[in-house]
Amino acid sequence: MARDTAERILLCALELFNELGASNVSTNQIADELDISPGNLHYHYRSRADIISGLFNMLEQSLLELAVVPDNSLDSAEDIWMFLHLQFERQIAHRFWYREINQLSSEYPALRKRFQAILELQQRSIQRLLNQLADSGQLQANALERATLARNMLLIMNSWLSFSAISPDPLAQNPNLAVWQVLSLVAAWLRPDQRKALERLAGMYLT
Amino acid sequence: MARDTAERILLCALELFNELGASNVSTNQIADELDISPGNLHYHYRSRADIISGLFNMLEQSLLELAVVPDNSLDSAEDIWMFLHLQFERQIAHRFWYREINQLSSEYPALRKRFQAILELQQRSIQRLLNQLADSGQLQANALERATLARNMLLIMNSWLSFSAISPDPLAQNPNLAVWQVLSLVAAWLRPDQRKALERLAGMYLT
Repeated sequence: MARDTAERILLCALELFNELGASNVSTNQIADELDISPGNLHYHYRSRADIISGLFNMLEQSLLELAVVPDNSLDSAEDIWMFLHLQFERQIAHRFWYREINQLSSEYPALRKRFQAILELQQRSIQRLLNQLADSGQLQANALERATLARNMLLIMNSWLSFSAISPDPLAQNPNLAVWQVLSLVAAWLRPDQRKALERLAGMYLT
Repeated sequence: MARDTAERILLCALELFNELGASNVSTNQIADELDISPGNLHYHYRSRADIISGLFNMLEQSLLELAVVPDNSLDSAEDIWMFLHLQFERQIAHRFWYREINQLSSEYPALRKRFQAILELQQRSIQRLLNQLADSGQLQANALERATLARNMLLIMNSWLSFSAISPDPLAQNPNLAVWQVLSLVAAWLRPDQRKALERLAGMYLT
């Protein structure tokens, strides 16, 4: 029962943080929303930092299990699409981090290192994926081009949710568009026939 | 003399905001740094919002004059490089906006609209630039590919400074790399001979 309450507190905090921004939500608001006393909340999480830390554990677990791409497991455009789709789905579920990461990581320096470790793992996974595609002759990009491409993919994957919050482009709110934007970076370097196949796939998702 | 003080206050605020983050700097700190009294600062800027507004005017003026790309004015890889280089140089001079835009634009809703207007102008300029390159046969990308490309360029240009603040990649601190990352998006769609020329140019900047 106690464990249920601790979990409910985290899930409620996640929802409020996503909706209103972490810096605009107090622990009392979370208690109010759950209809529990501030004392009860305090029993489970002694400070706001404990809640933030619990939420970061959720994000980290969710992303790390996905970021590990086994060798040769993604070898078609559809596989990469699905990988990116799952990635964005999970980031959207924890979107407040992506909008406030600079502020949160300066408030909680220990989380900064752990977020950077996620970025490094993602970067290595993307780089390995691109190398596999190049080795199999599907991607026509040299080592410098692949390193640059990996960096851009990582940046867009991790900045999309923050940029879409300010972007005046109505399409920016569509998570399928986010996947397509990253995928298009790869498409540019694919053999023309494969690029066309990918664009047909994108067309299906975007309409 | 009064005008000088008003200007010195803005420039000092810009420096402190860039260094420490706007949300971590009080108006009293600005007065301290300039060795003027809080009353004197208050005489020129009645509130923190007035300082923020003055700084936004500076950003807006600096970017708008650059974002207007005359028809057919940029027709070589070097021209585009220079355009992006100047763009990043100005953004770096005002970098706190790019790290805190979501928070600042929810605190100051009037600025949100004006920032979005800058984004829209930049998007149109990039799109026109890509259309010119396609019309002259240098860029081999169809309308969907160009729209996607323009969106990615805009995102990277406007998210780089925020992402580089958290990125564990030591290269991310190099502003020349930012220019190359955006330029590489265009390079992918250039004719192979022109792409090679661009990569030679990048190599000169990156070393």
